[in-house]
Amino acid sequence: MLSFQELSVQFNAYFDTAHFPASPETLYEPGEYFLKIGGKRIRPVMCLLGNELFSEIHPDAFQVARAIELFHNFTLVHDDMMDEAQLRRGMPTVHTKYDANTALLVGDVMLIRAYEFLQTIQPSYLPKILKIFNKTAREVCEGQQLDMDYAKMSEVTMEQYIFMITLKTSVLLAATLEVGAIIGGASENNCHHLYEFGKKIGIAFQIQDDYLDAYGNAADFGKEVGGDIKQNKKTFLLLHAMSVATAAQRKALDELLNDNAANKVEKVLEIFNACGVAEWAENLKAKYMEEAFEHLESIAVVSSRKQPLIDLANYLMNRNK
Amino acid sequence: MLSFQELSVQFNAYFDTAHFPASPETLYEPGEYFLKIGGKRIRPVMCLLGNELFSEIHPDAFQVARAIELFHNFTLVHDDMMDEAQLRRGMPTVHTKYDANTALLVGDVMLIRAYEFLQTIQPSYLPKILKIFNKTAREVCEGQQLDMDYAKMSEVTMEQYIFMITLKTSVLLAATLEVGAIIGGASENNCHHLYEFGKKIGIAFQIQDDYLDAYGNAADFGKEVGGDIKQNKKTFLLLHAMSVATAAQRKALDELLNDNAANKVEKVLEIFNACGVAEWAENLKAKYMEEAFEHLESIAVVSSRKQPLIDLANYLMNRNK
Repeated sequence: MLSFQELSVQFNAYFDTAHFPASPETLYEPGEYFLKIGGKRIRPVMCLLGNELFSEIHPDAFQVARAIELFHNFTLVHDDMMDEAQLRRGMPTVHTKYDANTALLVGDVMLIRAYEFLQTIQPSYLPKILKIFNKTAREVCEGQQLDMDYAKMSEVTMEQYIFMITLKTSVLLAATLEVGAIIGGASENNCHHLYEFGKKIGIAFQIQDDYLDAYGNAADFGKEVGGDIKQNKKTFLLLHAMSVATAAQRKALDELLNDNAANKVEKVLEIFNACGVAEWAENLKAKYMEEAFEHLESIAVVSSRKQPLIDLANYLMNRNK
Repeated sequence: MLSFQELSVQFNAYFDTAHFPASPETLYEPGEYFLKIGGKRIRPVMCLLGNELFSEIHPDAFQVARAIELFHNFTLVHDDMMDEAQLRRGMPTVHTKYDANTALLVGDVMLIRAYEFLQTIQPSYLPKILKIFNKTAREVCEGQQLDMDYAKMSEVTMEQYIFMITLKTSVLLAATLEVGAIIGGASENNCHHLYEFGKKIGIAFQIQDDYLDAYGNAADFGKEVGGDIKQNKKTFLLLHAMSVATAAQRKALDELLNDNAANKVEKVLEIFNACGVAEWAENLKAKYMEEAFEHLESIAVVSSRKQPLIDLANYLMNRNK
């Protein structure tokens, strides 16, 4: 059995290749550029871990892992367009380096390419995996739409935010583990618990993401700290602050959100601190982690096989970028 | 056996339904809107015809036909964004009626939805059909990229244009027939000839499209006549006119292309007429039709089964919209 770190190394070596044909270069070179920017490759490694939990890793798990990483990158290329993001991991986004039409088409073809990596897996589980992949892909789009809708709404409840995050982020992590498990021959019940483990981890992952955006170290984080605050993004932190703020804090917060003062990030963080947002986020993350581990506990395999998933979860929750 | 027209009626009845879940409405309502704008639904009917050429139509052919129509509409939603088109079949395009972000995401989810309709077909031919679908989808993106690249190039050869059109338009018609044939149990050789028939028909179809843009009747055509001319689109007609024009005609043409004079369409058409472009296009179309019919001839089924495909080809080539 390989550890999470060992599988990361294996996947990175496997993924270090051309992902598209050479021509037309105007379409495929920007695609290769974006995929070379890197990333944590968490999702594909989760697919391998899902397989490894039940049996030796089958080559199909690498194919599916690759498809999932391409799918994830397709969403990033298009999300960057929607968010008008200039940088991704410190590098120019596709629509910035090239243009919007190129980014649009590069995203499209990356999604199609993801399906091309799926098409070659064993026919015995192809329909099942394709079905999960499709459902998840559609849910991720729904999550992105809700994220955009919420940006225009003055009030968003914590429940709505968690629903959106579940679609936008969690279901892909959950499905990634599940399709790996299917390749590994897991039972339906084990698949269910692994999926739920992934979903809970996904929400905890987002809490950490929101936390890092406000409290991270810019050098580690690789992007500007306070970006969410500047954009008035409804995050776990902001929604919690709004719900517990005193009338005076709420008034100050509303004024800061309606204004783009130079010291906005600093001032919002002061209110966050006064509201105990960081501790609250830490507790909420711990709650989701606990629920995740309960599902992991329910999976009927020997405990030692679960260690790489425990390591992964701990890595995700304690990461600083 | 059903005629092309009868199958059109059947497909339209089948397709007259919701294509997405109800929620989130901000994502799916624009998708339903676009699909309701209509269209000739040529591709899905071709899928049914491909099946019918070899055997009775299997319900899977309707599923695949639907997937192909959704795929085609996904390309239209995104192409309209890239072309900054305001209208599609006389109705506002998605990015015009809603906004660019919505159109981007609606296109994405429509592509994913297409795959959802594929996932339920019989596992015996799912991998084969998925492979053809993926390859074709990617080629269509390549064709769109080349189309955008060519728009920026001062010189495009007829060979390059045909290569681009083959990818952007023909391969989807060809693949649509082929996947229908696979559901109908066709042999590899028969599939090959049907694919080639579709490819040739596709090029003839584009010649007719380019012809109608210049010589169509606005009322029938449903969009502005001369749109390609106004946008300096490199069409079969323009490329031919450029290749046969006298030095004086070429100079006049270049001046018209570099300028957006009020009478540009009229003046370009005068040169087209002087160059005999309409007759040339008619002949080229006839040549591709002939090649298409040779492939149809080579398909080993009784001639009477081929009649609906002959009717389809004749309809496509004589259409006025």
